[in-house]
Amino acid sequence: MEKQKNKLRIIPLGGMEEVGRNMTVFEYGSDIVILDMGIQFPEENMPGIDFIIPNVGYLKGKEKNIRGVIFTHGHLDHIGAAPLLLKKLGYPPIIGRDLTLALVEKRMQEYSKESIDRSKVIKIKSNSKFNLGVFKIGFFNVEHSIMDAVGVTINTPEGTIIHPGDWTMGTKSKNNQMIAYNHLAMSSRPRILMLESLGALDTNKELISEDEMYANLEKLINCATGKVIVGTFSSQIERIGHIIEYAKSINKKVILDGYSMRMNIEIARELGYIKVDKNVLIQINEINKYPENKIIVICTGAQGEGNAVLSRIITGDHRFIRIKKNDTVIFSSSVIPGNERTIQRLKDSLYRKCDNVVHNAIMDVHISGHSNAENIKEIIKQIKPDFFLPVYANHYFLKEAAKLAIQAGIPKDKIFVLDNGSILEFQNRVAKISNKKVDTNYIFVDGLGIGDIGHVVLRDRQTMSEDGMFVIIATINRQTGKIKNSPDIISRGFVYMRESKELLTQARKKVKEIVEHSTGAGTPVDWVYVKDNLRDKMGQFLYSKTRRRPMILPVIIEV
Amino acid sequence: MEKQKNKLRIIPLGGMEEVGRNMTVFEYGSDIVILDMGIQFPEENMPGIDFIIPNVGYLKGKEKNIRGVIFTHGHLDHIGAAPLLLKKLGYPPIIGRDLTLALVEKRMQEYSKESIDRSKVIKIKSNSKFNLGVFKIGFFNVEHSIMDAVGVTINTPEGTIIHPGDWTMGTKSKNNQMIAYNHLAMSSRPRILMLESLGALDTNKELISEDEMYANLEKLINCATGKVIVGTFSSQIERIGHIIEYAKSINKKVILDGYSMRMNIEIARELGYIKVDKNVLIQINEINKYPENKIIVICTGAQGEGNAVLSRIITGDHRFIRIKKNDTVIFSSSVIPGNERTIQRLKDSLYRKCDNVVHNAIMDVHISGHSNAENIKEIIKQIKPDFFLPVYANHYFLKEAAKLAIQAGIPKDKIFVLDNGSILEFQNRVAKISNKKVDTNYIFVDGLGIGDIGHVVLRDRQTMSEDGMFVIIATINRQTGKIKNSPDIISRGFVYMRESKELLTQARKKVKEIVEHSTGAGTPVDWVYVKDNLRDKMGQFLYSKTRRRPMILPVIIEV
Repeated sequence: MEKQKNKLRIIPLGGMEEVGRNMTVFEYGSDIVILDMGIQFPEENMPGIDFIIPNVGYLKGKEKNIRGVIFTHGHLDHIGAAPLLLKKLGYPPIIGRDLTLALVEKRMQEYSKESIDRSKVIKIKSNSKFNLGVFKIGFFNVEHSIMDAVGVTINTPEGTIIHPGDWTMGTKSKNNQMIAYNHLAMSSRPRILMLESLGALDTNKELISEDEMYANLEKLINCATGKVIVGTFSSQIERIGHIIEYAKSINKKVILDGYSMRMNIEIARELGYIKVDKNVLIQINEINKYPENKIIVICTGAQGEGNAVLSRIITGDHRFIRIKKNDTVIFSSSVIPGNERTIQRLKDSLYRKCDNVVHNAIMDVHISGHSNAENIKEIIKQIKPDFFLPVYANHYFLKEAAKLAIQAGIPKDKIFVLDNGSILEFQNRVAKISNKKVDTNYIFVDGLGIGDIGHVVLRDRQTMSEDGMFVIIATINRQTGKIKNSPDIISRGFVYMRESKELLTQARKKVKEIVEHSTGAGTPVDWVYVKDNLRDKMGQFLYSKTRRRPMILPVIIEV
Repeated sequence: MEKQKNKLRIIPLGGMEEVGRNMTVFEYGSDIVILDMGIQFPEENMPGIDFIIPNVGYLKGKEKNIRGVIFTHGHLDHIGAAPLLLKKLGYPPIIGRDLTLALVEKRMQEYSKESIDRSKVIKIKSNSKFNLGVFKIGFFNVEHSIMDAVGVTINTPEGTIIHPGDWTMGTKSKNNQMIAYNHLAMSSRPRILMLESLGALDTNKELISEDEMYANLEKLINCATGKVIVGTFSSQIERIGHIIEYAKSINKKVILDGYSMRMNIEIARELGYIKVDKNVLIQINEINKYPENKIIVICTGAQGEGNAVLSRIITGDHRFIRIKKNDTVIFSSSVIPGNERTIQRLKDSLYRKCDNVVHNAIMDVHISGHSNAENIKEIIKQIKPDFFLPVYANHYFLKEAAKLAIQAGIPKDKIFVLDNGSILEFQNRVAKISNKKVDTNYIFVDGLGIGDIGHVVLRDRQTMSEDGMFVIIATINRQTGKIKNSPDIISRGFVYMRESKELLTQARKKVKEIVEHSTGAGTPVDWVYVKDNLRDKMGQFLYSKTRRRPMILPVIIEV
C-alpha cells in the first residue's frame, strides 16, 4: 500500500464489459477522483432485477480521500447509481454542468427523496478549471444526444487523462462549426485518452446531421392530417424542445406524456435551456378541445416498456389518447440491444391501428449520440494521445477500437484494454496493468434490496421460470414412519394442474412409496435422507413423464 | 358450409404475425392442399417453452380431404412441425424436392423415431406438374439460403396462386443467370401472389453476391496462421460444401462439429448435392494429428446457444478444441432478433481468447436468404399479379410490403394483409375476407407436452421468475384454531434465505397473527377464507419489507 504514493491508478469499476454501469476511479496518493456513477440494465438471465450498480468495495475505508465525483452528462448509465453510491461513500462533492446536476438531483429525489447538499456541489462551465487534491481538472465541449455533455481532462503528476465521456462527431451542422479536439493535443504529456468506443463496429454507418433529422420530423408533423405521436427517450431534451418550438411556429399544440419526460423538460425550461411557450404546451385532459391535426403528443415508451405511455396508447389502455388510422406515429429513438422482439411486437400492434408509422428504416427520424469507426480514428488523430484506453462498451467493441487506434498510428504497446476492476498504474511515465484486480461483482438492486440477491436466488428464479416448481408436503407419523393421509402437492408453472389429475395421482402414490421405502418403524428416521430421496426420485419420475425438470421441494411434517 | 363448394379459401394458420410457424391451407370444395408446417421459437415471455406449432383445429374432421402437404424448403420454420402435425392429420401425402424431404424425414426420426411412409411421398423437380384434387400444382426455381428451395404455383378454378416460399434475388452471380420470374406472368388469371416479405424494411441493405462472400471466406481461410473456426447454421449446406471443396484445393482438413450439421452434410452428400472428399473430412479426435494451420472446424452455435459447439469451444468446455490467440473465428451467420445480447456476450468471451474474430460488421462473411425492398418491387413487376398477399413475416413487415406493392402498381383494393386464421375467399374472381376466423391460438410444445401449457402456467412461470415464491405451511389444531409449532416457510427466488433470518422471523409471527385472527375456537373454520387472508396480508407484508411480490402459496394442515 505504501508504494501507491507515487503512482497514478486508473480503476474502471464498470463500463468495460457491458454498456452502462459506467464508473471510473482515479487515484494518486491519498487523492481520489471518480468519473460517473451509472447503472446497467439487467440481462435476460437476471429476471426480476431492477438494475445493477457498480461495486464500490475498493473505496471502503478510503471515503475521506474522495475529492469529488464528476458526472460527464445526465444519462442513467452515467448518473443512475448516484443516489445509492453517493450515500454509501459519505456524500463526496459532486461536479457537473447545470442540467447534469439537476438530473442527478431529480434522480435522488425520485429514488430516495433526498436533495443535494448545495455546499458540496461544484457547478462548472466548459471552460472551468480547478484542483481536486493533486488533480487539475478541466473540461471541453463534446457532441452527444443530451445537452450539457462534457469531456474531462485530469492533469496528474503522471500525465493528462483526456475523457470525452459519450460523444459523437459532425451531427451538429447547422450554423455550428464542428467541434474540434485539436486543442487537446496541447495537453501535457503523456496524454492518456480514455475513449468511449460504442461506435467501433459501425464501419458502414453514415451519420446524418441533426438538420436532416429535424427537416424530416418537421415535414411529418406539418403534413399530418391527424394527430402526431412522437415516441422518444425522456432524456432527448433538445429534440423535444425543438419540436415544441416548431409546434409554435405552425400553431400546433404539444402534450408531454410520461412523468420523467415532463420533469426533464420542466428542469431544462427552468434552467433556460429550452424555450417553452405557455400557449403551446397543453394538458393531456385538454386533448379533445383541439382538432386532431393540431395535436402533437411526445411520450416515452418507444423501447416497448410495458407500462410506458406509448405501450398504453397502442394497447388502448391510455386514459385520454386513442390511436386513429390517419394519425402519424414516429419512433424517434434507437433500438436498445435486447429490446428488438418487444419493439417488433409493439410495432405489429401499432400497424394494425395506424397507417402512418415512421421509424428509422422508413426515414431518418432519429440520430444516435455515438460516433462511428471513422470518427474514432479522426478523434485519435486530432488528440494525438500517447496512451489509448477504449472504454464504456462491451469488451469486443473495446478490442475493435484498439484495432482502429493501431490504424490511427498508436503503437500496440501503448494501448490498454482493461476489464472492470483492472488497475492500470502509471509510474515514471511507464504504464503497467497490475496483477491484482478490484472486486467488481454485480450489485443487484431488486426492490428495496441492494446487493442481497446473488447467484443462488437468480438460479432459482431461472429454474422456476423454465419448468416451474413442485412442493411435496408429507405428514408422517413419527412412530410408524408412515404417511398420514395423502401427501399434499402444490405445483405452479409445471403442468396445468386441473388437466393433470392422473399425473398427480401417480405422483402421490410414488411419494408414499418413496417415503415408506426410506423409513421404517422402530429405527430412527433420517429425515435429510428421506428428503434427498424424494427430491431425486420424484425428479426422475416427473422427468420421465413430462421431460420437464421442475424445482422439487419436499416438506416433511412429523406428527 | 354448403356454400364453400364454389369458393377458394386461403387460410394462413401461422406466419402472418411472426417469423416461423409458417403454414397455409388452400381449400376448394372437398380438396385441401397445405403449404409448409413450420415451428416458431418462443418469445421471452414464454419461458421454458421449446417451440410453438400451428394450431390445426380447423382441419379436424377434414383429414380425408387433405390431398397433400407441400414443403417449399427444409428450414425448421417450414418443416419443423411436420412430425407432430403429419401424425395428427393422419399422414397425408407429402411433396417436396429431394433434400427437403430428406430433412423432413430426419426431423421425424429425431423427434419421434418415425420414418416417412414411402408410398405417400411425391418427390418433385422444379418442372414437375401434377394434380391434387381440383388443384393443379407446379413449381419454379427460387434463390434462398438452402438448396432445393422451390416456389409453388397452385392453379385453381378461381385463379393461380403463386408462392415463392422464402426467396432472395441476385445473390448467385457466378456463371449463373439471375433467376427471372417473368414466365409466371403467363399463369392464368387472376394471379394471386403470396410473397414472403421479410425484406420489406430493408430499404438500405445492399445485397452482396455469394461470389464476394466466398472470396472473403477463402482469403481468411487461406491466410490463417492458426486454425479456422467457422460458426454457421447447420442448414447452410451449400456454404459448408463450398468450404469443404476449397479446403481440399489448399490441402487443409475439415472437422464438422454439431450433430445436426454432420447429419445434414451426410444427407446432402448421399443425395449428391455436395462433393465430400474422404481425405478432407477428419474426425474431431484427430485434430492433434495435423498442424493447427491445416485445420478448419465448421460448427453450430453462432447464435450463442448455450449448449452448442461454438459456445463450448469459447467457454473452454469443449473436449477437443481449444481456442488460441492466432486462431481465426468466423461468424458466417446473421443475428436472429432476440439473440443480440447473447451473441454480444459470446463475442466478449471470444475476443478475450482470440485476436482474429470476423463477423459481418468487419467483413462480408454471410449473406442472407431474404430479399430487400427493391427486390420486392422487382418481383411484383415481373410476375404482374392481380392480387397481392404479403406473407411469412411480422405483421408490420406485411404492411410495409403492401406499401411497396402499391408503389409497384398494384391497386390498394387488390392487396390483402391477412392475420393468422383469416379466411380469404375467392368466388367468381371476387376476393373477400370472411368475417369468421379460424382458431390459431398458440400450441406450445414443452418436453413431452403438446398444447398442455397455457397462459395460466406461463403467467405463473413469469411471476416466479420475477420475484420468486413463498410457501407458508401452517399446521393448525382443528379444535382450537391455533397454530401448532412455528409455521414452516419455504421460499425460493425471493430473498437469500440465509441472510434474511430477521425477515423470516417476522413473517412467521405475522402468519400466526393472521391465522389466529381468522379462526377461533368453537366456530367452524372457513379455511378458504384463512388462506385468502394469508395470501393477501402476507403479500402486503412482504411487499412493504422488500418491494417484491413473490407468489404466495398458503398450505394449511389440520391436525
